[in-house]
Amino acid sequence: MSATPSPFAPKSFPDLPVIDGVRIGSIAAGVKYQNRPDLFMAEMADGTAVAGVLTKSLTRSSAVEWCAKVIKHGTGRAMLVNAGNANAFTGKAGMEGTEHMAAAAAAAVGCKKKEVLVASTGVIGMRLPADRISVAVPALHAGLKPESWEAAARAIMTTDTFPKGAGAECEIDGIPVKIAGIAKGSGMIAPDMATMLSFVFTDANIPSDVLQQLLTKGADKSFNSITVDGDTSTSDTLLLAATGKAGNKAPKKASDKSLADFKEALDKVLTDLAHQVVKDGEGASKFVTIDITGAASDKAARRIGLSIANSPLVKTAIAGEDANWGRIVMAVGKAGEKADRDRLTVSMGGVLIVEKGEGVQGYDEAPVTKHLKGREIDIAVDIGIGKGKARVWTCDLTHAYIDINADYRS
Amino acid sequence: MSATPSPFAPKSFPDLPVIDGVRIGSIAAGVKYQNRPDLFMAEMADGTAVAGVLTKSLTRSSAVEWCAKVIKHGTGRAMLVNAGNANAFTGKAGMEGTEHMAAAAAAAVGCKKKEVLVASTGVIGMRLPADRISVAVPALHAGLKPESWEAAARAIMTTDTFPKGAGAECEIDGIPVKIAGIAKGSGMIAPDMATMLSFVFTDANIPSDVLQQLLTKGADKSFNSITVDGDTSTSDTLLLAATGKAGNKAPKKASDKSLADFKEALDKVLTDLAHQVVKDGEGASKFVTIDITGAASDKAARRIGLSIANSPLVKTAIAGEDANWGRIVMAVGKAGEKADRDRLTVSMGGVLIVEKGEGVQGYDEAPVTKHLKGREIDIAVDIGIGKGKARVWTCDLTHAYIDINADYRS
Repeated sequence: MSATPSPFAPKSFPDLPVIDGVRIGSIAAGVKYQNRPDLFMAEMADGTAVAGVLTKSLTRSSAVEWCAKVIKHGTGRAMLVNAGNANAFTGKAGMEGTEHMAAAAAAAVGCKKKEVLVASTGVIGMRLPADRISVAVPALHAGLKPESWEAAARAIMTTDTFPKGAGAECEIDGIPVKIAGIAKGSGMIAPDMATMLSFVFTDANIPSDVLQQLLTKGADKSFNSITVDGDTSTSDTLLLAATGKAGNKAPKKASDKSLADFKEALDKVLTDLAHQVVKDGEGASKFVTIDITGAASDKAARRIGLSIANSPLVKTAIAGEDANWGRIVMAVGKAGEKADRDRLTVSMGGVLIVEKGEGVQGYDEAPVTKHLKGREIDIAVDIGIGKGKARVWTCDLTHAYIDINADYRS
Repeated sequence: MSATPSPFAPKSFPDLPVIDGVRIGSIAAGVKYQNRPDLFMAEMADGTAVAGVLTKSLTRSSAVEWCAKVIKHGTGRAMLVNAGNANAFTGKAGMEGTEHMAAAAAAAVGCKKKEVLVASTGVIGMRLPADRISVAVPALHAGLKPESWEAAARAIMTTDTFPKGAGAECEIDGIPVKIAGIAKGSGMIAPDMATMLSFVFTDANIPSDVLQQLLTKGADKSFNSITVDGDTSTSDTLLLAATGKAGNKAPKKASDKSLADFKEALDKVLTDLAHQVVKDGEGASKFVTIDITGAASDKAARRIGLSIANSPLVKTAIAGEDANWGRIVMAVGKAGEKADRDRLTVSMGGVLIVEKGEGVQGYDEAPVTKHLKGREIDIAVDIGIGKGKARVWTCDLTHAYIDINADYRS
């Protein structure tokens, strides 16, 4: 399958900062793909704090289970990630493969296995040829460098049509701090080849419990607020490693005022990466931002937003550039959150279409139609009953999604 | 838009029995469509018990709200249903239109407004031209006959490609009883034109509270176990009217043994109608039966089944005739119900593919591929942790679904 590049593919990979205490690299291990790097490794300085947000799937892969344990300890020295084989649904052999990967990285770095974070993405149900990985690790490790973000982002791609990276610089207590991250994913997922993975690094000095709180909150506003098809991977993994090399005084709580700038920068990086995943969504031709206001709570707002974002009828209407607000209203109704038909307000492209549950009589559809012909679509819904709000993102549902997914494995 | 007929369209409409105490008919009222009947009416004998299952959407239409009140009273004398305009999201004018329809039918029949069940399906957000309906009702009523099921089923069609009907004969306490029903719907819905409506009639003598219990239970196993796209209409309505003319002794409880045969017949009619809706699903080329066993409860089993049935990745794989079991396992994982990866068993077309969470090594894919090339696809998943079971039905997700929905209103 040769995928057409996303119309949102950037002209070039962004310039990402070097993160003090992190060395990265990639190599072609031949796990499944030929003639392309398929193995990514990062080595982090001693004492690096780690945090993670992992798939809530009840059928998650062994690598995800492994990461959950490492994150609990709070420190990590390396990441090893392969593309081409997800090592999911491989029974006991699955955890053996994951441990084999961790052991190979630990041997190269000179750390404990339980300090290695592991991720795998690709076809499922096939045993991981872990030997090919372990054989490749020494050369991979020997070539690690502070900068090679684009190569790293390319090594973890599966159905992605462009490599994804984002970075930011900020301050904690006046000390300059840097953040850099990469991601892959191009269906919200798909257990076989479109799992969402993201690895973010910073030189900030932040204890793991605080780091985890910042990441959880940031993920809710970014990766947990996007959808391509509503399907959830067995392998979705977001990791954040903080080396502490920036030398700032460690904050004690996530609410510490010194973290304001860092939080903003982290959220920006996470949101940027999440948007790139949606923009590379399978078959995506439109990037859709959905703002919900006036819901019973922020959580209710997000659920309503995702109900709209996941509705095949809404997504096909957007693909067809059709201002079909009835489908938006329908999706609000099925979300299961409190709503009152007669208080709903819906706008598209800034034009009021529905007011108090009734179509605005004689509204001018021309500017809305023009808006829908663009690449970036804005939908705003006010539920009219409370103060809860949320913003979520999705893409349209096109013929290309079906082309990509109707016979993927061949 | 001229839709291609579903490959599942039957050669002819089934023979449905005459229901003593029910007269039906249809007429072209010109609500939206030209040159075709778009108004269906039924008159039921005095004392007819009614029950209903209505959409759970929180943005439901005024006709649904009206029906909820009539059902609460437990008796009904008439049904009046129009196609072409859903009278949804029309603000206060919506309830005025619904009341206008009820009043017109009540005047013709000589009953109270609150004894008239009303349903509307079609485009939303446009005021209902209720006058065109009330003008047509006297002639419609004058022409009511005991038999004209096919014409009735045609009058309520919107994007349907074939009229849907089902009937059965059974016994209560040795007394012969008849059931006849019609349905429309060809996306699980769509608020504009593919709402699911179904009207079922019987001459059985069953009090309304018992009737409601039988219908609720039957709907769970039929209309609430099907999905085309997971979207829920603002107008979904299933009504059951029992005239009592069969003269059987009234059962006191739904668990009454005399009802065993009737329950089976009712479930058969409801399931048949529900299957026809899926088979006429927008763009459907495959009819998929999903059996879940071994779940924590029946409810959990149904939720897992619907998670599989609604997954765009599963549905596109079936469209592509691809035995992609990984997507089935993914959908089990995201259902949110208890599951253990290492106890999962998956079969397709009767062939075991996944056993205890691991792909069966070297299984013969040829018979599975052959099965997937057929029209009727069977998927069986055993969760392996309990005794809960459920059967749900769906269709595949094809290019035709996008063609139909990407620019529906034009």
